[in-house]
Amino acid sequence: METKAEQLRIQSDQMKAEFFRILIRLGFTTERAYKCAEIFTLNSLEGVYSHGVNRFPRFVKSIKEGYIRPEGIPSLMHRAGALEQWNGNLGPGPLNAIFATDRATEIAAENSIGLVSLANTNHWMRGGTYGWQAARKGFVLICWTNTCPNMPAWGAKDPRLGNNPFVMAVPYHNEAIVLDFATSQFSYGKLEKFRSEGRRLPFMGGYNAENKLTDDPGEILDTWRPLPAGYWKGSGLSLLLDILATVLSGGFSTHQISSCASESNISQVFIAIQLKNLHNFPSIGKSTDLIIADLQKSVPENENSKIRYPGENVVVTRNENLKNGIPVSREIWKKIVSI
Amino acid sequence: METKAEQLRIQSDQMKAEFFRILIRLGFTTERAYKCAEIFTLNSLEGVYSHGVNRFPRFVKSIKEGYIRPEGIPSLMHRAGALEQWNGNLGPGPLNAIFATDRATEIAAENSIGLVSLANTNHWMRGGTYGWQAARKGFVLICWTNTCPNMPAWGAKDPRLGNNPFVMAVPYHNEAIVLDFATSQFSYGKLEKFRSEGRRLPFMGGYNAENKLTDDPGEILDTWRPLPAGYWKGSGLSLLLDILATVLSGGFSTHQISSCASESNISQVFIAIQLKNLHNFPSIGKSTDLIIADLQKSVPENENSKIRYPGENVVVTRNENLKNGIPVSREIWKKIVSI
Repeated sequence: METKAEQLRIQSDQMKAEFFRILIRLGFTTERAYKCAEIFTLNSLEGVYSHGVNRFPRFVKSIKEGYIRPEGIPSLMHRAGALEQWNGNLGPGPLNAIFATDRATEIAAENSIGLVSLANTNHWMRGGTYGWQAARKGFVLICWTNTCPNMPAWGAKDPRLGNNPFVMAVPYHNEAIVLDFATSQFSYGKLEKFRSEGRRLPFMGGYNAENKLTDDPGEILDTWRPLPAGYWKGSGLSLLLDILATVLSGGFSTHQISSCASESNISQVFIAIQLKNLHNFPSIGKSTDLIIADLQKSVPENENSKIRYPGENVVVTRNENLKNGIPVSREIWKKIVSI
Repeated sequence: METKAEQLRIQSDQMKAEFFRILIRLGFTTERAYKCAEIFTLNSLEGVYSHGVNRFPRFVKSIKEGYIRPEGIPSLMHRAGALEQWNGNLGPGPLNAIFATDRATEIAAENSIGLVSLANTNHWMRGGTYGWQAARKGFVLICWTNTCPNMPAWGAKDPRLGNNPFVMAVPYHNEAIVLDFATSQFSYGKLEKFRSEGRRLPFMGGYNAENKLTDDPGEILDTWRPLPAGYWKGSGLSLLLDILATVLSGGFSTHQISSCASESNISQVFIAIQLKNLHNFPSIGKSTDLIIADLQKSVPENENSKIRYPGENVVVTRNENLKNGIPVSREIWKKIVSI
């Protein structure tokens, strides 16, 4: 008898081909279908299934419902020096974000730093993807997005802030060091993962219906009251990221993105910095190596602790999934192949 | 009988005059002594006593020991487009940071965005100060600093990361919304404040000598094992802020700043963005107002919860201290007037 959690392993090329087939059918051009299929596959390959293969059916649904427009491409609203404000025209979030990242690096190639803001875009799936994209080209990237209201402010009961993810990336050998975190202690993707595995969270992650802190992911998914990361700190960071995304793009703020089902019309900021232009460029690799080497000298808290830099696991998971295929539940894969 | 905790109230002008007198004696020029006295007074006026009046004796000590050079002024190492790398020449941290903030806003006035990095600088005291400085002039400011190793990485026992403070500021009417947080759950200033008041922390804040989580601030001040804010999230953020400060300035990274007593030779980054250049500039005030108004509609968790935006308390405290004088312990004030 098959269980819901039964896992398949799908090779990345096969997965990408499946996504591509569906996106073409939904009206994407060949080039855009390919790019978008690549991002969903890459996110899965690198272990962020919640914003890869597991999210693909919902992405398709949002396209069918008209929230995401396959043909929507960014248009320039305003250019001023090393800053550009673009309208995402409700195009697919990952394609808009790839574009904005590339554009920010192009501006940075000329001016050492470049800022691109995006109004009226859609969920970018995994923010870290764009960090890797820029870092691989030799740029630092700092980027963030707002979301629908899905986290209460510190001291509040009702979700009025977003768990606005924040990304910082820096080149590291041929890979990257990429920090990519939601401003809630646990992202919704992580809560869903723990729930589907029947596990408790390692720390209190939010409030249950009885107003008590809980480590039961299902209870938090019911109340929509995740704890901000670092309590008042994650709450403040979320607010500032929303204000800045709104102000710099001229787009919608979290309180205007009322529907969390579609989470459309969101605002994003991408800041790229060109390392090649720095006076210390020749020694940057060495500096970063020394910082990581020092980190790795840390005394572990216990024998199970591994001291890692952000993004370190991504490479391990990618290699494993390249070799063995991408794990996906039979149920989700069945849903995808039947689209 | 006087107790150690006995409080005086010193008027801000009197405090500033006292700081000014001492800085002149230490070899500051008139203009620099005035600016520096102003920052220490302002930080105190705005309630950050740990990086204002309470820190002043230690600042004087660092000058006398030669870690801080009164005459050290920033020199330009490299300019490339909208990015400048400066050497802080071990000048007073607050003066270097004021300079870097101003310079970043000048670059942003021309290019919409400007980045200034500072190598070989000293402790900037309160990072938020520079956020207010830029925001009052109509700029967004994102800035951060590294520190000496004073926080273990997530999963580690020994402090190899800094609690690297991070600041984001945006103009708000004639004031500002300013997020200013250490990447540890509680800053050392906060731990000292709780200890001096004989209070427990509101949450577990670090580990004690028995390897157990504790809410006793004194135990954490003994072990130097504060918890990163948001566990792995604050740890990752700290690492990235250090890498970026090091790489962008060409200065020292946390592991090279071995002495926490002097905490000299640190690295900082200041990114300013000019709001006036945006296409939506006329509606920015209104957008921010709507975000804050929505936040304030939050349902409080309990009758004691106040839902505040970052920086909201600063204005309240400033007004109170302007009226009633700045609270300072008799012991610290006595030490200062006797310098």
